[in-house]
Amino acid sequence: MAHGRFVSFEGIDGCGKSTHAAHLAEVCGKIGVEVVLVRDPGSTRLSEKIRALLLDPENFEMARECELLLYEAARAQLAAEVIRPALLRGAWVIADRFFDSTTAYQGGGRRIDASFIQKANELGSLGVVPDLTFILDLPVEEAARRRAEEADRIELEGNAFAEKVRKAYLALAEAEGTRMCVIDASGSMDDTFAQVAEVIGTRFGGKRS
Amino acid sequence: MAHGRFVSFEGIDGCGKSTHAAHLAEVCGKIGVEVVLVRDPGSTRLSEKIRALLLDPENFEMARECELLLYEAARAQLAAEVIRPALLRGAWVIADRFFDSTTAYQGGGRRIDASFIQKANELGSLGVVPDLTFILDLPVEEAARRRAEEADRIELEGNAFAEKVRKAYLALAEAEGTRMCVIDASGSMDDTFAQVAEVIGTRFGGKRS
Repeated sequence: MAHGRFVSFEGIDGCGKSTHAAHLAEVCGKIGVEVVLVRDPGSTRLSEKIRALLLDPENFEMARECELLLYEAARAQLAAEVIRPALLRGAWVIADRFFDSTTAYQGGGRRIDASFIQKANELGSLGVVPDLTFILDLPVEEAARRRAEEADRIELEGNAFAEKVRKAYLALAEAEGTRMCVIDASGSMDDTFAQVAEVIGTRFGGKRS
Repeated sequence: MAHGRFVSFEGIDGCGKSTHAAHLAEVCGKIGVEVVLVRDPGSTRLSEKIRALLLDPENFEMARECELLLYEAARAQLAAEVIRPALLRGAWVIADRFFDSTTAYQGGGRRIDASFIQKANELGSLGVVPDLTFILDLPVEEAARRRAEEADRIELEGNAFAEKVRKAYLALAEAEGTRMCVIDASGSMDDTFAQVAEVIGTRFGGKRS
């Protein structure tokens, strides 16, 4: 179906996903590729409303399955309204998180059954799968240092939770194989981005669509 | 798992579900049964927030899969926070809508693929299935006359949509067999409730839990 390229960035909070996703979008834009930069959950009017529900510390009583399905609802809107149309017209979509976050956070972090998550991810993504997924990996303590001081509901869960999520990402990378690429994000912004750029060049070469 | 009884009321808007669900709850309460009356989506703080998103006419651009998954998210919270605990302590749960609404509205009305809906319903209900489901059936035109003048986003879709939903309910009743009971709701409130009460008596007899 898709003619464009779909690249997602994953990792624990503070790993630099948003920065590198934005930087890659900027670089692609400069060489004339149409790029759509999105964050999941978010990037549509409705998905942002759902994101607000998800991250509001007031919603402390949220059941883990409700949380999972809210992520999928936001993702379905994003896929239908933005990602699918963009890929169909040949654009690159660069995403700050996609369904692997759900596997890592709701599976590794919240211990929801893997088959429950897999079914939910299939529904919420509308069958759209990234061509390439970067996992920006770094120690939990370093990520904590880099995070802004204003923590949202998920970030408040602390380092033990982040450690489970990090492990889940690394296990996922083992299991998924070629779609995923683990990047050492403990160095400088420039070091990390150089690794990202090299992988992009190798995988997608000169082909832009 | 469940020791209580779970009864749901279904039908197109204006069929009298809410009235009969509340009346059944009142009657059960009078004979000393613990009853929890819920509406789906809704009946928890978080599910009501999700309900508000779903019914707000401002959210006209909502993708049908996003809509479906929002219903499931609200339902998961309701099942986890209210329905499962109530059934476990032996209470009756009487619900104004449950997952059959999703099958009828999102399947019959919006034409989402049946297997997509079935998977979503399994996730959102957390595996909780009503013991008995009443479908209050009446002609679409009569339901329209009974409805309040202030229509929400779903009600605004009009009679052609309601007709598809009504047909989907009747097809579901054929397919599901004994869990479902179609009630002719075109008569008076008393006539309709007499049918409901008779079925309850036959199915559940003197046993209260």
